[in-house]
Amino acid sequence: MGTEVSVLGLGAMGSALAGAFLAAGHRTTVWNRTPAKAEPPAARGAERAGSAAEALAASPLAVVCVSTYDAVLDVLEPAAAALAGRTVVNLTSGPPGDGRQTAEWAARHGVAGYLDGVVMSTPAGIGRPDALLLHAGPVSVFEAHRPVLAALGDPVHVGEDHGLPSVYDTALLGLMWGALTGWLHSTALMRADPGGGGVTATAFTEVAGRWMKTVGAFMDEAARQVDSGRTPGGDFPLDLHLMTMDILVHASELRGIDAGFPELVRELVRKAVDDGHGGDGYARLIGYLRKR
Amino acid sequence: MGTEVSVLGLGAMGSALAGAFLAAGHRTTVWNRTPAKAEPPAARGAERAGSAAEALAASPLAVVCVSTYDAVLDVLEPAAAALAGRTVVNLTSGPPGDGRQTAEWAARHGVAGYLDGVVMSTPAGIGRPDALLLHAGPVSVFEAHRPVLAALGDPVHVGEDHGLPSVYDTALLGLMWGALTGWLHSTALMRADPGGGGVTATAFTEVAGRWMKTVGAFMDEAARQVDSGRTPGGDFPLDLHLMTMDILVHASELRGIDAGFPELVRELVRKAVDDGHGGDGYARLIGYLRKR
Repeated sequence: MGTEVSVLGLGAMGSALAGAFLAAGHRTTVWNRTPAKAEPPAARGAERAGSAAEALAASPLAVVCVSTYDAVLDVLEPAAAALAGRTVVNLTSGPPGDGRQTAEWAARHGVAGYLDGVVMSTPAGIGRPDALLLHAGPVSVFEAHRPVLAALGDPVHVGEDHGLPSVYDTALLGLMWGALTGWLHSTALMRADPGGGGVTATAFTEVAGRWMKTVGAFMDEAARQVDSGRTPGGDFPLDLHLMTMDILVHASELRGIDAGFPELVRELVRKAVDDGHGGDGYARLIGYLRKR
Repeated sequence: MGTEVSVLGLGAMGSALAGAFLAAGHRTTVWNRTPAKAEPPAARGAERAGSAAEALAASPLAVVCVSTYDAVLDVLEPAAAALAGRTVVNLTSGPPGDGRQTAEWAARHGVAGYLDGVVMSTPAGIGRPDALLLHAGPVSVFEAHRPVLAALGDPVHVGEDHGLPSVYDTALLGLMWGALTGWLHSTALMRADPGGGGVTATAFTEVAGRWMKTVGAFMDEAARQVDSGRTPGGDFPLDLHLMTMDILVHASELRGIDAGFPELVRELVRKAVDDGHGGDGYARLIGYLRKR
């Protein structure tokens, strides 16, 4: 078992990627501009390449993970002759336009398949089955290399457009901050409650984790509503959201917890209710986020 | 198989509870102040009680779900003689103090076991394995009736204090609004992106659902940090959060999406970074939510 893969760039994330490939039994070749960074993976069985070109020549698949897209070109341009026929998966972070431009550059240099991607995990999470890695480019290239990429976590193909991983990255972080801020506020509330004094953050969060399954089902339903353009409120309409938000704001104030976050959300809901959408569902609010 | 349970109160939620007990094969007795509401469960095999006292006498376990705690007493007071030796699970919503007072009232009237609870689901979700139901009171009472309560979803015991389910209710809704608002913002962003034009809300939310597993792991770690009082940032410190939040705010403005939500979160992070906590993790922010 195992196949061949090269990793170019051995910062914290690149080193984690190389480590996961090695752990999965793949013959892994590594290269880094500063050679000392190649020592730990070499000690775990990686082959060391003397140059980026040598790393590209060693395997049909090269994973690039450096600090910026400019650095990607700094690495690949001197090695351009070794790119022909290779597949490159670029997991460097950057703006959407950079992914698209790098894809064009790769095509001009004879790269057989180029995927742009983003790692939605910290280095410590790499290799766990839930670690999310998003890829864009030709689906055939993704499918051909999915078995190797699966050593890193949960690889997902999000579309052909090479700019998409970056857009997803920003959007998913926004979702994370919403969830974390809600969690933070609620944890503060539990700890401030006279009756909740005995509830640890860990105990609350264990229950919160179960609750997030239901919240996930609400998101799925809201997504279907956004796509269909019909947003019936069913048995949890905006009127009821508003009423229960008042309770949260009041409870926050009562316990000395900053109510800025629930007040912002309530303001959004109140606008929709004032416009006569109190019987609609949460998905109806999406129209209120567009400024023009 | 099956055991005996009575349901008092047949509004939308009470009817869903009775339906789930019936579906699980339990001998279910129902009662409602307005008798017509008992017809649908009776058509599905429920026994109809002529009074609240008759419903209490019919089963060792009575589940009460009415509109308010005042309504709970209106139902139980005239039937007080039938309460001795019975277990009452009160799934009516209300403030924490009401749960505690009702527990005292129940004890004075010879109730053998009283659990206060909250249903973290819409009526449509009742009976699904993920539907979360929180209970507080003596753990022995909870454990004795857990098998019957499991017909409704995922029953969880949150503590002895009868006020806790209400506190959890408010806190978990706050978490939900954080997650839903983050989702809403991100979905709007994806749809407004020129490159993301082809991404439906449903496609984005499928990826978002996978991502929430990682976010859940971040919450678990942050909870451990809150409890320990030590909040090291590891490879995702507040400095990095702030940098990537700038990208989200900028992307929102660029695409005409209201940036109020990410700006509020960024302001919170900025305060902590300005105070020299840029190397700390997200859990460090909990200190900034207390106003006094």
